[in-house]
Amino acid sequence: MKHEEFMHEAVHAAVDNVHNGGGPFGAVIVKDGEIIARGVNRVTVNNDPTAHAEVMAIRAACQKLQTFDLSGMVIYSSCEPCPMCLGAIYWSHIDKLYYAGSQKDAAQAGFDDKFIYEEFDRPIASRRLHTEQLLPEEGKAPFAEWDKNAEKVEY
Amino acid sequence: MKHEEFMHEAVHAAVDNVHNGGGPFGAVIVKDGEIIARGVNRVTVNNDPTAHAEVMAIRAACQKLQTFDLSGMVIYSSCEPCPMCLGAIYWSHIDKLYYAGSQKDAAQAGFDDKFIYEEFDRPIASRRLHTEQLLPEEGKAPFAEWDKNAEKVEY
Repeated sequence: MKHEEFMHEAVHAAVDNVHNGGGPFGAVIVKDGEIIARGVNRVTVNNDPTAHAEVMAIRAACQKLQTFDLSGMVIYSSCEPCPMCLGAIYWSHIDKLYYAGSQKDAAQAGFDDKFIYEEFDRPIASRRLHTEQLLPEEGKAPFAEWDKNAEKVEY
Repeated sequence: MKHEEFMHEAVHAAVDNVHNGGGPFGAVIVKDGEIIARGVNRVTVNNDPTAHAEVMAIRAACQKLQTFDLSGMVIYSSCEPCPMCLGAIYWSHIDKLYYAGSQKDAAQAGFDDKFIYEEFDRPIASRRLHTEQLLPEEGKAPFAEWDKNAEKVEY
């Protein structure tokens, strides 16, 4: 399969998903020129706000390959990822991201990723999400425990 | 239970999780003054790069309450959320976020959320993650399908 065909697959998955009760988003993950996992948006169907297409595809790829590291792989998403999904892509160590629809297309359809990106750029005190640090000294305890754990698996 | 006690629970969950093969992060979600869900970092154990404490707590709360909308609820996290988790918190419509450890504490322990936040602030072309738009016109198709679907469930 070629580059554009992988994107066709992601877009077709998104269109199909709308007919299947889900949101208009799809993604595929490619390893060595082959699709190894797919994901579609199942937020409302699964009652899971994290069930975006890219997150679902990453989870599926990791289950299939029994790894938490997708280094060297490529994700094709039907739409520019939201901050949650972009974060997930970074944590998975995927190498390349291709997307078709833009944030603007998503916003016009009522998916306001832009609001979240804007919130990220605001200082914590002026975000709409009330955010506050509490017990900062206690917050260091888990990391102290981590540091002295000789059997820790890093990622 | 009081405010600080909820944070104690999140921090204790994080410490316990280190002894249980997981990462040094914990979170609890509170509704009407009661903890309704907990989450800890299980990235390496579950082979799931999205299995951060906040994401796990959000999924658990949503499964318990059979909803994708946690409006009115509060999340206590043992550490300042990474971009993926902060995005998940926004999508879940949680109202308030309290955190104990800081991004700096996390970075010192080897969890480099800061790198991801910095990547977000770079123009796409200069990010370390190779990112490229492909087939932008096709990318509008899922949204067109969504717009004409009378039975869509919005979130």
